[in-house]
Amino acid sequence: MDNRLPKFVEFHEEGPREGFQIEKRRFPLEGRVRFINALSETGLKRIQVASFVNPKAVPSMSDAEELFKAITRREGVRYTGVWLNKRGFERIAALPGAYLYGKIVLYTTDAFSLMNNNCTAAQMRRKQIEMLKAYDAYGLPLQEAYILTAFGCNLSGHVPLSTVMDCVKFIVDICRNQNRPLPHIFLADTVGWANPEGLKRQIEAVRGATPGARIGLHLHDTRGLGAANFYAALEMGIDLFDSSVAGLGGCPFAAFKDNRAAGNICTEDMVFMCEELGIQTGIDLQKMIAAARLAEKIIGRPLPGKIMHSGLPSILRKAC
Amino acid sequence: MDNRLPKFVEFHEEGPREGFQIEKRRFPLEGRVRFINALSETGLKRIQVASFVNPKAVPSMSDAEELFKAITRREGVRYTGVWLNKRGFERIAALPGAYLYGKIVLYTTDAFSLMNNNCTAAQMRRKQIEMLKAYDAYGLPLQEAYILTAFGCNLSGHVPLSTVMDCVKFIVDICRNQNRPLPHIFLADTVGWANPEGLKRQIEAVRGATPGARIGLHLHDTRGLGAANFYAALEMGIDLFDSSVAGLGGCPFAAFKDNRAAGNICTEDMVFMCEELGIQTGIDLQKMIAAARLAEKIIGRPLPGKIMHSGLPSILRKAC
Repeated sequence: MDNRLPKFVEFHEEGPREGFQIEKRRFPLEGRVRFINALSETGLKRIQVASFVNPKAVPSMSDAEELFKAITRREGVRYTGVWLNKRGFERIAALPGAYLYGKIVLYTTDAFSLMNNNCTAAQMRRKQIEMLKAYDAYGLPLQEAYILTAFGCNLSGHVPLSTVMDCVKFIVDICRNQNRPLPHIFLADTVGWANPEGLKRQIEAVRGATPGARIGLHLHDTRGLGAANFYAALEMGIDLFDSSVAGLGGCPFAAFKDNRAAGNICTEDMVFMCEELGIQTGIDLQKMIAAARLAEKIIGRPLPGKIMHSGLPSILRKAC
Repeated sequence: MDNRLPKFVEFHEEGPREGFQIEKRRFPLEGRVRFINALSETGLKRIQVASFVNPKAVPSMSDAEELFKAITRREGVRYTGVWLNKRGFERIAALPGAYLYGKIVLYTTDAFSLMNNNCTAAQMRRKQIEMLKAYDAYGLPLQEAYILTAFGCNLSGHVPLSTVMDCVKFIVDICRNQNRPLPHIFLADTVGWANPEGLKRQIEAVRGATPGARIGLHLHDTRGLGAANFYAALEMGIDLFDSSVAGLGGCPFAAFKDNRAAGNICTEDMVFMCEELGIQTGIDLQKMIAAARLAEKIIGRPLPGKIMHSGLPSILRKAC
């Protein structure tokens, strides 16, 4: 019915970072190492291990280096981290075996930028130009550009498409001026404001302004629309997604009172959707579910993933 | 982008029945009455209160009559129940104020039919012809025909489209032979096997075989595809859905080991999606979220609904 569905979808696993970063306490290293090692066996090609941020601000990530060194790195898997500034980048760059690449991060609103990075969105842009110099010094091409809060922001409300397109223009202009190829452009629904139709319109607009560039999505399931947004993106031919095993993660600023807002779109549920739609992912769903269950055991409370609790129909399918 | 999206979507609320039916124990009447009364204030036009089934088989529903009599019935709201046979129908028919209508239920597999109704799918068909006579005796037209396990069955596996179409043919033939208008045809993903593309194909096929009939969907979020399936159905112009506040429900036969499989698609999350897509529902989302939180308080554990935990972005939108 839809001919634009991609044939292969690539998942960038963020569970170890998104899931544990939001926890108030630091979980024992041993469990997190086992968890990442389990993910390494699933067929995932990229795993975001930790955030290299201020340990005082994010104590749960204060052992990022130790964790990185303790995991068993599997050949063919790229182990990455998150950094928000040059200092964070240099921390990860100092680690043997870390996958390094050039990445710039833009915000659509001052409020979110100030909260996350203690600078306005415009100041953040200027900092990204400095980051490009740092990547150049390491010989790393600009590979990814993230537009955060690309659909809405809990602090500033709805984000108009024109603001996103202005961020896109900034990326395009930099690349043109500095003679760089366009990076992958990630639209991040940081706090779960996207809806399937708005998402399609935004993809269409960004695609129109960045011919040839690959578009990726970072989606959250904050308000129950994650799977619908994922499917809408597939319908637009999008083949690159950030996701979290077991649906780990969730922005603490997105929750009502003492509740927990749901996390990122759930890797294994979305892999399952792909399989049902005939889209390849290179991921072993059984192993992914096992990793999700391990995460739940470590975190110690039910996690949002669905298929990890309901089981896989293909097992039944084979049995009958 | 998609012009087939409906302008108005009708939700049949099943939370009070789906949610409490699967519980091992019977919850106190008072809380369930308060819950249903809260739902009555949301703008919902139809609420399924209870199952009128064998109290020995389903003890949690053994006070169905008492519950029905205790709720405050609001004008304009239709209070219904589930029945599987003539005896169940006569129980609800005896209740003052119950909304009665003709309904037939078909299975795609013998295994599920035997488990739910202790008869084969073919025997079930014959029983439905008897049910039609019972409805005729009450002067009730055939309003709904349900095809259960229309996408797959945990006991028998994948259900081919031809099996569903054979059920559709049975409905069409009965209506032609008995000179009845076609009922609403509900495709029920009883244990969460549907995927967005397969769903679209099935809707297309059923629509082709039943010109003019309204198609409804009963969807479960068992494997995390509920919201995607809901959106895919909207794309096909479907405007009639069963759903459960807070995502209550979930077939006990769909869970892995001691886990709980996710329940029906979540009313307030899907209402939120509709609002974001510019589709009207007649439902007050704030009141719906309040009812979901009340359900969680009564059940006493976190329920699957997302927006009930993350809160409503429109509040923020208004504030800024």
